[in-house]
Amino acid sequence: MAGKEDSDGNPRHGVPKGSRTSNQELLYDPSIPTSTHAEQARTIAEKMSTATLCTISERSSGVPYGSFVTYAIHNGSPVFLISKLAEHTKNLEANSKASLMISETGEGNPLALGRVTLLGRCEKVNGEDPAMRDAFLKRHPNASFYVDFDDFSFYKLAITEIRYIGGFGRMSWVDEPDWSTSEPDPLIEVAEGIIEHMNEDHEDAMIIICTEFSKAKDTVGATMTGIDRYGFEMSAMTGEGPRPIRVAFENEVTDSESARKEIVALVKVARKNS
Amino acid sequence: MAGKEDSDGNPRHGVPKGSRTSNQELLYDPSIPTSTHAEQARTIAEKMSTATLCTISERSSGVPYGSFVTYAIHNGSPVFLISKLAEHTKNLEANSKASLMISETGEGNPLALGRVTLLGRCEKVNGEDPAMRDAFLKRHPNASFYVDFDDFSFYKLAITEIRYIGGFGRMSWVDEPDWSTSEPDPLIEVAEGIIEHMNEDHEDAMIIICTEFSKAKDTVGATMTGIDRYGFEMSAMTGEGPRPIRVAFENEVTDSESARKEIVALVKVARKNS
Repeated sequence: MAGKEDSDGNPRHGVPKGSRTSNQELLYDPSIPTSTHAEQARTIAEKMSTATLCTISERSSGVPYGSFVTYAIHNGSPVFLISKLAEHTKNLEANSKASLMISETGEGNPLALGRVTLLGRCEKVNGEDPAMRDAFLKRHPNASFYVDFDDFSFYKLAITEIRYIGGFGRMSWVDEPDWSTSEPDPLIEVAEGIIEHMNEDHEDAMIIICTEFSKAKDTVGATMTGIDRYGFEMSAMTGEGPRPIRVAFENEVTDSESARKEIVALVKVARKNS
Repeated sequence: MAGKEDSDGNPRHGVPKGSRTSNQELLYDPSIPTSTHAEQARTIAEKMSTATLCTISERSSGVPYGSFVTYAIHNGSPVFLISKLAEHTKNLEANSKASLMISETGEGNPLALGRVTLLGRCEKVNGEDPAMRDAFLKRHPNASFYVDFDDFSFYKLAITEIRYIGGFGRMSWVDEPDWSTSEPDPLIEVAEGIIEHMNEDHEDAMIIICTEFSKAKDTVGATMTGIDRYGFEMSAMTGEGPRPIRVAFENEVTDSESARKEIVALVKVARKNS
């Protein structure tokens, strides 16, 4: 789906996370492939496992009530294992309108973190659904201690709307069909390791990539800040200070090994031309 | 206020955080002074600075909408600096009913973490309130870049109800007057440092305190897990495995120095009797 626009008509590009709109010229081609907002939202939802469930308070009529929950994403929907004694469960039994606010965690300015709000109806799952149960217990092994307690049941949020905020000035409403058909990033589990490895051992390779594939020709240092199926992002140290750079892969990657191959291919081209 | 019951009639005691109700005998006197739920809730609210704001969606009528926010507590109320362009601000302008869900962060089972939901009405602050502005900017220095932007305004949540969850099986509705008159723990900023110091350098002292002041007479190791104005909590390594122990101070403490004095006094008594 690279190159496609998302549901708000936002083209598939943007500035790397944490950077702010400024008067400085962008030092890379903003039209290179980037995850859509739907893909980024699904990636955040899949990566995290705790969030805030918002329900309508039954006790304090009409007040929106936030509670801390654990969840797992199963077939694109958040599922919960909650006790009928809990406030949020009583609230849902009276009114199933709900949303789940999932936020990334990390250092630095908290408003630069990605987050997504999933809105819809959250209802009790009737009957057995072994695949859903397994998905939840795989994500929350501790829940095996109470999964069979009488007062605990699975609930599922049927999503109708999605609000994605990627940080400063990067946000949109994502259509449900885009959410359903998008895949979370395949590098979720390995991205952190790749970034650490690149920053520890391959700064030289990133500097040469910046000078070859971006306008940051005077780059003297580079730190990888993100990687996804379509490419990766760096903070390049230039004469004007740190500047965000995004570089696209030639082919979409699916795992550590294919990401490694694509990075090596970029370095080869850069070395040849330098 | 030590010894007082909280608004739900819960006496001022409880098992240390993270422990679960079990059939094992409690190895310390559960009636020793402990923070009330109101105090614990205020401590969490004061310690954290990001949370989930729950509003009623204007766009998706009646659906409770969760969004990520930064906040500061000023005179017991959460205050926000938000843009009129943001979803939550549009929601509040149409319906001021709101809640703020604040959760501790930490390792281990996420459901053992403390959290508090503050319910009420969230409205724009009219006129200048320099003290409130200063309190917010002190907590969020980055906000000084946009505090004077035309589209940003301060909002305040006037709290009417408080839901506190301290972990497994420790929860209650706290009355607003209890919230207003309670003080956050004076050790908020120093607790982590005291705990590190005790665990690195003074395990012997904690072992002798466990053997003297609790029923854990066979303690061979001890780790401090929490400290507050009324006392501190340890995980004591006993013949039956790790067991929670709480020990009360003779006098309420207000800072690192008074906490140190109270711990030294407990060790002296314990050494004399051993």
